[in-house]
Amino acid sequence: MADGANGAVGPVDALLAELSDDMAAVGDTIRTRMASEHAPRIPEVTAHQLEAGGKRLRPLLTLASARALGYDGDDHVKLAATVEFIHTATLLHDDVVDESEKRRGRPTANLLWDNSSSVLVGDYLFARSFQLMVECGSLRILDILSNAAAVIADGEVLQLSAAQSLRTDEAIYRKVIEGKTAALFAAATEVGAVVAGAEDSVVEAYRRYGDALGVAFQIVDDLLDYGGVGQTLGKNTGDDFRERKMTLPVILAVAEADDTERAFWSRVIETGNQRDGDLAHAMGLMAKHNTLSATRDAALAEAKAAKAALDGVPKAPLVTHLKALVEFVVARAH
Amino acid sequence: MADGANGAVGPVDALLAELSDDMAAVGDTIRTRMASEHAPRIPEVTAHQLEAGGKRLRPLLTLASARALGYDGDDHVKLAATVEFIHTATLLHDDVVDESEKRRGRPTANLLWDNSSSVLVGDYLFARSFQLMVECGSLRILDILSNAAAVIADGEVLQLSAAQSLRTDEAIYRKVIEGKTAALFAAATEVGAVVAGAEDSVVEAYRRYGDALGVAFQIVDDLLDYGGVGQTLGKNTGDDFRERKMTLPVILAVAEADDTERAFWSRVIETGNQRDGDLAHAMGLMAKHNTLSATRDAALAEAKAAKAALDGVPKAPLVTHLKALVEFVVARAH
Repeated sequence: MADGANGAVGPVDALLAELSDDMAAVGDTIRTRMASEHAPRIPEVTAHQLEAGGKRLRPLLTLASARALGYDGDDHVKLAATVEFIHTATLLHDDVVDESEKRRGRPTANLLWDNSSSVLVGDYLFARSFQLMVECGSLRILDILSNAAAVIADGEVLQLSAAQSLRTDEAIYRKVIEGKTAALFAAATEVGAVVAGAEDSVVEAYRRYGDALGVAFQIVDDLLDYGGVGQTLGKNTGDDFRERKMTLPVILAVAEADDTERAFWSRVIETGNQRDGDLAHAMGLMAKHNTLSATRDAALAEAKAAKAALDGVPKAPLVTHLKALVEFVVARAH
Repeated sequence: MADGANGAVGPVDALLAELSDDMAAVGDTIRTRMASEHAPRIPEVTAHQLEAGGKRLRPLLTLASARALGYDGDDHVKLAATVEFIHTATLLHDDVVDESEKRRGRPTANLLWDNSSSVLVGDYLFARSFQLMVECGSLRILDILSNAAAVIADGEVLQLSAAQSLRTDEAIYRKVIEGKTAALFAAATEVGAVVAGAEDSVVEAYRRYGDALGVAFQIVDDLLDYGGVGQTLGKNTGDDFRERKMTLPVILAVAEADDTERAFWSRVIETGNQRDGDLAHAMGLMAKHNTLSATRDAALAEAKAAKAALDGVPKAPLVTHLKALVEFVVARAH
């Protein structure tokens, strides 16, 4: 996630500053645990992937949730590292599935090494994350994270069949992004609250916060792939279009399409026969049917739900930062 | 694993008969848990892979270990299903890594569907196995299986770098097969003993049994890839040679090689420049240096250790079957 364009310290940086010792400890845990006695390729691939991974938003959510609730132990660090390992493992596998060559402007691990390394190092990180959470000794936390892992994998497989089909509607899309993004966000905040010993209603509030934040985050990501509501073209604009992914801006445009438009969508998404000018035409159709602003509205509704979820939890400066984080995530959409 | 050629009931069938109700329950658990609410491809791919998976030796080991120790609960069924899911997940990922097109004479899932499905359904099964073991509610069992998962993944990555290199020696080979096969065999028998509430020395005996059986099993598999000691050529003979894998028969031949032979091994294994007649020449070198019988001896030593491990455990008919299973596994090598 990039900083705000105006150079002001955004809420991610505020959280990073507030939790700098914890984040350093997470970094140490990650470095220690990604080491392999036998296979030097594991830390190489992992380090590459982690460096490409941005600001470590997910571990930050776990740390912030635990600390906001007054936790003063060490297990939140292990759980934050667990969440980052799960995320990193899914990115490695995603790049194999998508046949990606770049992530955040850097060559992907499957390109630098090979698909085999990405698959197997992903498996290794998943196993390591599992060891880390077992060490925390909480069956409730293991239950949360094992369920999240199943939802993630389920969503990834669903996405395979949902892509390239005009029958993919908003309900299917929401199941896909629940797996792709929201399930791990939700688990990240939920386990933070559980490790802090919060009561059930507070745990549930943190889970809802993470879930809605994750949905908003992914909807905004999908919107930005078409340049946001302002259709600001960047170098990655249209990646989802070229990969024939059914994201919300397209789904809403297909729902409003007349026969001619539907034939267009069928050609570019279903048959994949794309020509010069198709992306511009697609964006014209999205503008005509206002699907980019409708997509933004969907993200804003999730953002509102995320903030509302935290209304009843114990007050703390970190809660204020978590609410500001929601604003920051959806502000990217404009 | 095939039955004995003489049609007699082998120890696998004896175990299957003894544990038929339990195995039926494992089958039910597998069928229920591989279902996905959202993604019909998951049960399709899983069912295909499971049907190709043979006689379910690993879950049988868990059931037999638990029952031999008098266990009369239900958790051993969940653990057996867990072990089979982990095994199935690794097979799906292995086929992507090896770019295999056949497994046990059937087309692989990555060929029937695609690599993406194999990667993601493997992830799904791994997540499902994790949920199943959490349900058993034993942190000790979670510890054993999470450690096994890490050893498996570590060994798989090590195998990537060990292949195609003449520097791979017997020590590296043993680490690879520990991950590839023995770690899950060992975990399968260990968790069976743990769930039965066995004392520590008995748990350790079952773990050692599973570990040595797994090592013997894999060494025999690698030997059979060159037709066994008798060099009986089958349709899959030489698969490892063509894939330039450093298995024990080759490692021992390289260790004894003179300069000319070493140049041959370097060409066929390291540069991969293989010609007609190379497999026959390689098998001639193995015969010359007696590496196939040395490989069999290594398997027999493990078999002896496996049987010895069970000498001190509580006697039961199933223990006799487990010892007979060891004989059966190494009998394939002759």
